[in-house]
Amino acid sequence: MIKKVLIANRGEIAVRIIRACKELGIETVAVYSEADKEALHVQIADEAYCIGPKLSKDSYLNTTNIISTAKKTGSDAIHPGYGFLAENANFAELCRECNIIFIGPSPEAINKMGTKDVARETMRKAGVPIVPGSKGIIKDTDEGVALANEMGYPVIIKATAGGGGKGIRVARTEEDLIKGINITQQEAATAFGNPGVYIEKFIEDFRHVEIQVMADNHGNAIHLGERDCSIQRRLQKLVEETPSPALDGEIRAEMGQAAVTAALAVNYSGAGTVEFIYDYVNRKYYFMEMNTRIQVEHPVTEMVTGVDLIKEQIKVASGDKLSLSQEDVTFNGWSIECRINAENPEKNFMPSAGKIHMYLPPGGYGVRVDSAAYPGYSIPPYYDSMIAKLIVHAPTRDEAIEKMKRALGEFVIEGISTTIPFHIKLLQHEQFVSGEFNTKFLEIYDVMNS
Amino acid sequence: MIKKVLIANRGEIAVRIIRACKELGIETVAVYSEADKEALHVQIADEAYCIGPKLSKDSYLNTTNIISTAKKTGSDAIHPGYGFLAENANFAELCRECNIIFIGPSPEAINKMGTKDVARETMRKAGVPIVPGSKGIIKDTDEGVALANEMGYPVIIKATAGGGGKGIRVARTEEDLIKGINITQQEAATAFGNPGVYIEKFIEDFRHVEIQVMADNHGNAIHLGERDCSIQRRLQKLVEETPSPALDGEIRAEMGQAAVTAALAVNYSGAGTVEFIYDYVNRKYYFMEMNTRIQVEHPVTEMVTGVDLIKEQIKVASGDKLSLSQEDVTFNGWSIECRINAENPEKNFMPSAGKIHMYLPPGGYGVRVDSAAYPGYSIPPYYDSMIAKLIVHAPTRDEAIEKMKRALGEFVIEGISTTIPFHIKLLQHEQFVSGEFNTKFLEIYDVMNS
Repeated sequence: MIKKVLIANRGEIAVRIIRACKELGIETVAVYSEADKEALHVQIADEAYCIGPKLSKDSYLNTTNIISTAKKTGSDAIHPGYGFLAENANFAELCRECNIIFIGPSPEAINKMGTKDVARETMRKAGVPIVPGSKGIIKDTDEGVALANEMGYPVIIKATAGGGGKGIRVARTEEDLIKGINITQQEAATAFGNPGVYIEKFIEDFRHVEIQVMADNHGNAIHLGERDCSIQRRLQKLVEETPSPALDGEIRAEMGQAAVTAALAVNYSGAGTVEFIYDYVNRKYYFMEMNTRIQVEHPVTEMVTGVDLIKEQIKVASGDKLSLSQEDVTFNGWSIECRINAENPEKNFMPSAGKIHMYLPPGGYGVRVDSAAYPGYSIPPYYDSMIAKLIVHAPTRDEAIEKMKRALGEFVIEGISTTIPFHIKLLQHEQFVSGEFNTKFLEIYDVMNS
Repeated sequence: MIKKVLIANRGEIAVRIIRACKELGIETVAVYSEADKEALHVQIADEAYCIGPKLSKDSYLNTTNIISTAKKTGSDAIHPGYGFLAENANFAELCRECNIIFIGPSPEAINKMGTKDVARETMRKAGVPIVPGSKGIIKDTDEGVALANEMGYPVIIKATAGGGGKGIRVARTEEDLIKGINITQQEAATAFGNPGVYIEKFIEDFRHVEIQVMADNHGNAIHLGERDCSIQRRLQKLVEETPSPALDGEIRAEMGQAAVTAALAVNYSGAGTVEFIYDYVNRKYYFMEMNTRIQVEHPVTEMVTGVDLIKEQIKVASGDKLSLSQEDVTFNGWSIECRINAENPEKNFMPSAGKIHMYLPPGGYGVRVDSAAYPGYSIPPYYDSMIAKLIVHAPTRDEAIEKMKRALGEFVIEGISTTIPFHIKLLQHEQFVSGEFNTKFLEIYDVMNS
């Protein structure tokens, strides 16, 4: 069993991982940038070391300092959290070379899923539904045009090395497409050093539904149900829930099985998420991408399954078999997560760094708060704006919504602007309450003025 | 359905009730003493009214002011919480006369269970096991001596009007007994205006195991499993857990059924707790008393059953049938509660009122905090010393203990002394961890110096 873990991250996920380690009797090593001296993860870990200046590239992405800190402290494993080095195959490889357990999948699995056209082709071969489109990178515009005529417009052009909404362009006409392919190739060459693009049928109205998977190093893989993350602003998830209001049992089981197939196809190990485009009109789902790490929204899955995903990650990385089989996985009630960001929703979600004067998280039955904030904490402006995750669990969706409204109303964060007022409005919004919406929700509805 | 509730209480239970009401869409009216102007329950309720000076007798026990506030605000119900007026049959009667729903059982049920010899006799008739002893109040010392000789010493003398550890005396010899009966009768006459005493066989080594029951006004009653509250200091519970490490499935089912029988015997309605003496050596249980209200330790039951007991109380008081039948009740995992008191465990648990400078409750998966504290809050010295309840939920007892230790270690309360250091020591104590202990635990072990 792993005895000492270095947490190569900050914020709430570092706190989350330290908590899991403590409960497992594992020693913890925090690392921090010069801007994070006062951070909560630094205070609650057994040991803490500064690994560089404020900018991520010099600290949280400084693989040399992180590896040497792990070696110096006798850490036998590194947990990368999400973001930063979590999906960096080179870092995972470096850990392996240095004889440190990387708590995550193999570099090979990260690579296979990280390169979009390879992932798409791997999924196609494994029989996981993919959006109709080119087989890998297109040779030229002619190939693209021919394919688009076959599938029908609109189509989407994607840089294979892109991600997170970058290197993507929609084309509704042949003219659009030819121009789009050229521009995307040029941009991708500059931005990612790889000009390869592929094209897919563009599904306009869909829900973002993802499946949590967990696999071990003994060939076992299970899924832990779905999360619906359709409430997004500029491709950033704001609210996640499980189950999805849009799925029925049959589709849920099919998508779950498809996600397990996807994981097995790349010899996956640890926690991962297979993201799907869910075309609810036609009840069809398509592989979007696999995130080869723990995700921000993992708590909602924990609430309904009763499985501690971080502990399970650590156990699997230690060489244990999965602690449960697919038949053991049960789903209980409804869970919703709101991401509380230090942003001003009245001012176009402008970031709002600064000092938190008063801080009182909500409590009581069915309320969970994952945060690294505390009274007097100054939010540094260099990192992600998310300062807390508020998660509720209740028997039904309606009850979960009522509980979330109650908890949001109690949450006191003074000194900075937060997205709490946005969430309160969203949870009162008729269309949100109905459960019938897609990823365009926040384009269609002006929630703050509703 | 009830539309507006006046909460005739303060502290964490007032906050707990307000939270449940908000989630049910019910309006809330807080009442407060002059010492509680800054209290959290006053801040989060929809309306709040001062009902008198700092001392409880002038405010939280001031039935005239409470009833008139309910009338003035158009509240259709009063929730008494625990303590104060919760088991006051006269107050329940007064509510009925004023056409206000008292969220609790009928005055008749409160009375029957509140008078110890009546309760004992009612249970005997209903077939609920009671400790061997006199049938009701003894006529004189001769009757007591004859009975004691029959049962064998030690025996316990109890004032029928006593409670909470008052009006109780143990006798190990005939001489003790004769003296004890006389003294207890005199004291009871003075203290309670009722000299009646009864005697029982004294069971020295037992666990305090209680059963949560819930009944409606349609003749239905169920139980929601047990709570083990054997960790007590001077009859005050400090830690509660469910399930009990001492029960097996057979005894659990029997005690559950006995508690339901007890509730039905007094036409009980709402949430109640039947407390038992559990003689684990002989696997026998005996009715101790019934608490005709919600209890401090109710959250552990909520965590393992998934039933919101406060919401269920409100629904039942509204006239609804129980939302679940006995067959619907399931038990999932282990839950422990630690009562965090403003007391100094290093100084014999001396109360420690004052201002909380820094306050940061623990969070994360499986951790629940029910509290009315906040940063900058001054604890008034006039009321109960409990300032927070820390509740954890995990698949097994060992995991729950580890989680509780982690959460206690994170809990920041600065400015006053609390019992957190006591709980940390207790949860590390080998004998506590073994699960094998009885109500004498804190007499036998010096936890703070262990």
